[in-house]
Amino acid sequence: MQAVTFRAPGEVRVETCPDPALAAADDAIVSVEATGICGSDLHLYHGRIPLEPGFILGHEFVGTVTAAGPDVTDVAVGDRVLGCFVTACGRCFFCRRRDFHKCVEARVFGHGKTLGGLPGAQAEQVLVPHADLTLRRVPPGLSADAALFAGDVMGTGFHAIRSADMAPGDVVAVLGLGPVGLCAVQAARALGAGHVIAVDDVPQRLAMAERFGAEAVHRGEQDPKAAVRKATAGRGADVCIDAVGHPDALDLACRLARNAGTIAVTGVYSERCQVHMGIVWIKALTLKTGQANVIAHVDPVLAMMTAGLLDPTPLVSRHVPLAEAPQAYAAYARREALKIVLTP
Amino acid sequence: MQAVTFRAPGEVRVETCPDPALAAADDAIVSVEATGICGSDLHLYHGRIPLEPGFILGHEFVGTVTAAGPDVTDVAVGDRVLGCFVTACGRCFFCRRRDFHKCVEARVFGHGKTLGGLPGAQAEQVLVPHADLTLRRVPPGLSADAALFAGDVMGTGFHAIRSADMAPGDVVAVLGLGPVGLCAVQAARALGAGHVIAVDDVPQRLAMAERFGAEAVHRGEQDPKAAVRKATAGRGADVCIDAVGHPDALDLACRLARNAGTIAVTGVYSERCQVHMGIVWIKALTLKTGQANVIAHVDPVLAMMTAGLLDPTPLVSRHVPLAEAPQAYAAYARREALKIVLTP
Amino acid sequence: MQAVTFRAPGEVRVETCPDPALAAADDAIVSVEATGICGSDLHLYHGRIPLEPGFILGHEFVGTVTAAGPDVTDVAVGDRVLGCFVTACGRCFFCRRRDFHKCVEARVFGHGKTLGGLPGAQAEQVLVPHADLTLRRVPPGLSADAALFAGDVMGTGFHAIRSADMAPGDVVAVLGLGPVGLCAVQAARALGAGHVIAVDDVPQRLAMAERFGAEAVHRGEQDPKAAVRKATAGRGADVCIDAVGHPDALDLACRLARNAGTIAVTGVYSERCQVHMGIVWIKALTLKTGQANVIAHVDPVLAMMTAGLLDPTPLVSRHVPLAEAPQAYAAYARREALKIVLTP
Amino acid sequence: MQAVTFRAPGEVRVETCPDPALAAADDAIVSVEATGICGSDLHLYHGRIPLEPGFILGHEFVGTVTAAGPDVTDVAVGDRVLGCFVTACGRCFFCRRRDFHKCVEARVFGHGKTLGGLPGAQAEQVLVPHADLTLRRVPPGLSADAALFAGDVMGTGFHAIRSADMAPGDVVAVLGLGPVGLCAVQAARALGAGHVIAVDDVPQRLAMAERFGAEAVHRGEQDPKAAVRKATAGRGADVCIDAVGHPDALDLACRLARNAGTIAVTGVYSERCQVHMGIVWIKALTLKTGQANVIAHVDPVLAMMTAGLLDPTPLVSRHVPLAEAPQAYAAYARREALKIVLTP
Repeated sequence: MQAVTFRAPGEVRVETCPDPALAAADDAIVSVEATGICGSDLHLYHGRIPLEPGFILGHEFVGTVTAAGPDVTDVAVGDRVLGCFVTACGRCFFCRRRDFHKCVEARVFGHGKTLGGLPGAQAEQVLVPHADLTLRRVPPGLSADAALFAGDVMGTGFHAIRSADMAPGDVVAVLGLGPVGLCAVQAARALGAGHVIAVDDVPQRLAMAERFGAEAVHRGEQDPKAAVRKATAGRGADVCIDAVGHPDALDLACRLARNAGTIAVTGVYSERCQVHMGIVWIKALTLKTGQANVIAHVDPVLAMMTAGLLDPTPLVSRHVPLAEAPQAYAAYARREALKIVLTP
Repeated sequence: MQAVTFRAPGEVRVETCPDPALAAADDAIVSVEATGICGSDLHLYHGRIPLEPGFILGHEFVGTVTAAGPDVTDVAVGDRVLGCFVTACGRCFFCRRRDFHKCVEARVFGHGKTLGGLPGAQAEQVLVPHADLTLRRVPPGLSADAALFAGDVMGTGFHAIRSADMAPGDVVAVLGLGPVGLCAVQAARALGAGHVIAVDDVPQRLAMAERFGAEAVHRGEQDPKAAVRKATAGRGADVCIDAVGHPDALDLACRLARNAGTIAVTGVYSERCQVHMGIVWIKALTLKTGQANVIAHVDPVLAMMTAGLLDPTPLVSRHVPLAEAPQAYAAYARREALKIVLTP
Repeated sequence: MQAVTFRAPGEVRVETCPDPALAAADDAIVSVEATGICGSDLHLYHGRIPLEPGFILGHEFVGTVTAAGPDVTDVAVGDRVLGCFVTACGRCFFCRRRDFHKCVEARVFGHGKTLGGLPGAQAEQVLVPHADLTLRRVPPGLSADAALFAGDVMGTGFHAIRSADMAPGDVVAVLGLGPVGLCAVQAARALGAGHVIAVDDVPQRLAMAERFGAEAVHRGEQDPKAAVRKATAGRGADVCIDAVGHPDALDLACRLARNAGTIAVTGVYSERCQVHMGIVWIKALTLKTGQANVIAHVDPVLAMMTAGLLDPTPLVSRHVPLAEAPQAYAAYARREALKIVLTP
Repeated sequence: MQAVTFRAPGEVRVETCPDPALAAADDAIVSVEATGICGSDLHLYHGRIPLEPGFILGHEFVGTVTAAGPDVTDVAVGDRVLGCFVTACGRCFFCRRRDFHKCVEARVFGHGKTLGGLPGAQAEQVLVPHADLTLRRVPPGLSADAALFAGDVMGTGFHAIRSADMAPGDVVAVLGLGPVGLCAVQAARALGAGHVIAVDDVPQRLAMAERFGAEAVHRGEQDPKAAVRKATAGRGADVCIDAVGHPDALDLACRLARNAGTIAVTGVYSERCQVHMGIVWIKALTLKTGQANVIAHVDPVLAMMTAGLLDPTPLVSRHVPLAEAPQAYAAYARREALKIVLTP
């Protein structure tokens, strides 16, 4: 089959790779119809996360089941399905607590040996372990573009809002309007936020946030603190989302939050940094962090997409044949698009 | 002042009553701009709940604060406010647990001695105990019609959904489409229900439920069980709302619910009845019951109304001067309207 | 192997049955060291629940893994393990929500075709499906007697307290002091109940409840309502456990509960009955019902047993060789024991 | 009356101060029977928190109500009561959400103008605002020593465990064994922790932690990480308590916690510091921070003390007449005692 492989920093290639084959009793194979390029793919593309040359990239996919092991019961050959970006076993200490994102067997598609060595989905076919938990049937009528988001980007934006225990009517500040931040804006509205303040410095992203129901605030040209104060009678935001992953964003989140408020950190951190624990403590803040528990969220996300309450498809900037993946990666690296969908 | 008083079953009168005066340090007096007639007023009107002749009716109101005791800090003279239908002290065992609806000093406006002897709001003025908890400022731009619902009918519909711990994407069946059931339909949608199935046998109510985003199912002419099965792959509804208060409704709710599902009972029960505990138990159902905790919900309800996510104003059938309350009661008793608003 | 089989109402037999063999990839086989006779076995013994003649009884067991399929990862051959009374797949709609007790593939050991056709554990060996979820390693130092309870009776008593969302310091009334009620007493204390009132009419059971830290109240000779009133300043119990499964017990629970309190129903109901919905509603009670979700609870129960915070072993009245199971069943049916352990 | 006043860093004095008088309708005056010196008093004593000379110190007290305003309903003249260290109004945005610790009118006893200017309790009498929320009756039979802890130190240790959402059976690591840390150890056990690992470097404190049921680990001489790994099959602690308030403690907490674990920070932070957000994020940790919500916890704490499940009295090192407060402060500053109780 044809697949997108990593070759060197800044270089991906479309080449012929061996077809996947069922190994475990709960594996499935999916013939891929659409597969996204995600912001986290850029970390691999740029070499910031080391990856073995020749490894197949990609962790967002929609397609059709072409083979399934004997233990697979929730999906069947012929089903149109979407995948979550990470697998879970359903049986370990963490899965038994519904912390599927910390499953002891968790493997992320297309991220190389350090994250489980599971070949990616930017390919004509993809092998899916623990298929009953990793796959879901695409609800009738849902587009491939929408379904692509359910197991990754929208799952993460939704996770931000849910992990923050956002209450109906809350004022929510979303910092960083990449695809995850924009999905968090939409999820907040669909779950009953009273007001969403969306902060970034890219005009197109701010415009999309407004389209998704937020008050857009340009970080450099406007004053996020003043906007939050105005919306909350001076109290501060009930919930802040750090969808950036930079100490400045976390610091701003701490300053925007009200007493006893919550900050959900979906942006990735990998190092030590300065945190104003004095502000955190005096405000009695709660911080929720880490990768999204998408397997726990994918069912409600799909139900809300089907109901029209969540619709991330405006984020899809363009569709590109799989064969043109190298050019698509280069364009995405230049930030020319919010989401590019590859079609094998 | 002029006020609507109960005289005898089927007879209310508009007559001159003494103006209210501040008594406790946290009392306020509100000059009433709009006051609703509610389904529960009909129980009093028909004499099903005994009431002292001459007692002032009404528990839904919007108006302006004209006097406030020295301990009132959250609202002030001149503020446009709405009232909750019941008071709470903020200090007792129950209030300390946020069970404001079970406050040891709870008094319901306009329900006579057995519910605290607090004169009603269908009057030019109303005395409001514990004003900081009972009153809220009307957010700028919110209509009196909308605000009227926040402290009673929408507060109750919202309570149904929240007390049932409805999760995003859930399939919700609402049984009984009076004003509370219709508000529950709207609240379910605004909080992320994947699908709402609304059951009644009055075509206008079913039409309103559709307008509020539900699938309308005529109880006599259609099959609620089939509708729920179809929407849930045969599993049953995640959440059922009994907004009727009749054993048949509760029985249907038990049959429509899925295993480990939840039934919220906002409809009023006052007697023993048959319940199929076998079904309840084998399905491992949770039942949540009782009067709504509107004081806990009024802030988020107002925030969501202001955001346009909740809008019960289509339920207001007509506005009538306070002086015409007798005719309005008669019309409401004939079920000619979903909600009548009296304007003093 | 030798196994206890149902033959006819009132008649069980120990006879030679075929050894079990692995079928699915996540099966295991356990060589049984100890296996309990449970109150629910009596329903089968008396023929109240129909069972195929020759079917192997029993759903409580401790033993050693002698074989395991290739997908079993959490336990291994040679491990000393205990079993939960019911299986779960870890992958379906319900398991994904942690409602393991409503798994679509749930099968109860030793209950015949209607509950999944899974042969029981009162045998020298038992086949265990979905072994990673159904089995747990016995923590070092824990006795077989204690471990036997973790996956059934203590799991159920613990479930009662946890499903009722008992808060620290709560006053808890436990109605019915069979093994499950007594375990609920102990779990309530170990989780921080302020006071436990235990109601029954059997002196030995009342004495055991006192030993487990409860105030014992004889249902016929003393006044449970007075006891609860005294312990709660007249308010009523925060939590009531109906561990009986009879309308009188449920009615008493409703009367003992405080406003906004919770009733957990672990006693089994199978039919329609009278419930005073008027009391339930005016008090705004919550009812939690159904079979226990033991797979969700078995890890914390074992940790608390290991810590010495839970110890159900005083409930074990006697140990009997498997070969004497007919006499043991007869004695248990005469209520001569709280728990009998069979040793193959 | 006689009272302990701050004069200068390192200098307190017992001097005659004016008797307090009722001001608001919900005030009460308490004649003090016992009042503690707390670790946070040392911050004032050492001048690390500025305080006006002549200000009365102290925020822990037990005594008898001698006067009460007309709005006080839950306590009455003659009642033996204890106080919480901070007041709450019961009516504001935060109180309505049960975040009493962030009440807009919150005032801490004995902390000077910046924390509300409320004179302290190390005096013969103390004025108590919002008496219904700030005071509780001492349950019959409870000692003054125990009651003193309910509204401050045990309330804070209990808050640590509750705010961390500790589940039954959890492994809990408590870092820092001052009185709050030791109370957290005891609360964890009483609420069902499976195992508690208590870390400090003072032998007497480690010995007290063992007495309270923990495994004591000397920070310098033993290896906390090894102890946690051993207790958790290498997984890490479910819950960590930072009862120190130093970046090294927070760092250790992050390293001891398991994936998807929780850290509750009761130790005080007032500045920026380094936090390894990379570890926090990759483990998907939750951080809960800030001053304890003691008003929310005081009822269950008292119930559990009455039941004998919590007993902090071993922490009381000595009783001293109020007149000897200067010597007692000096001794406490030399860390000669875990808790000193002054008796007016």
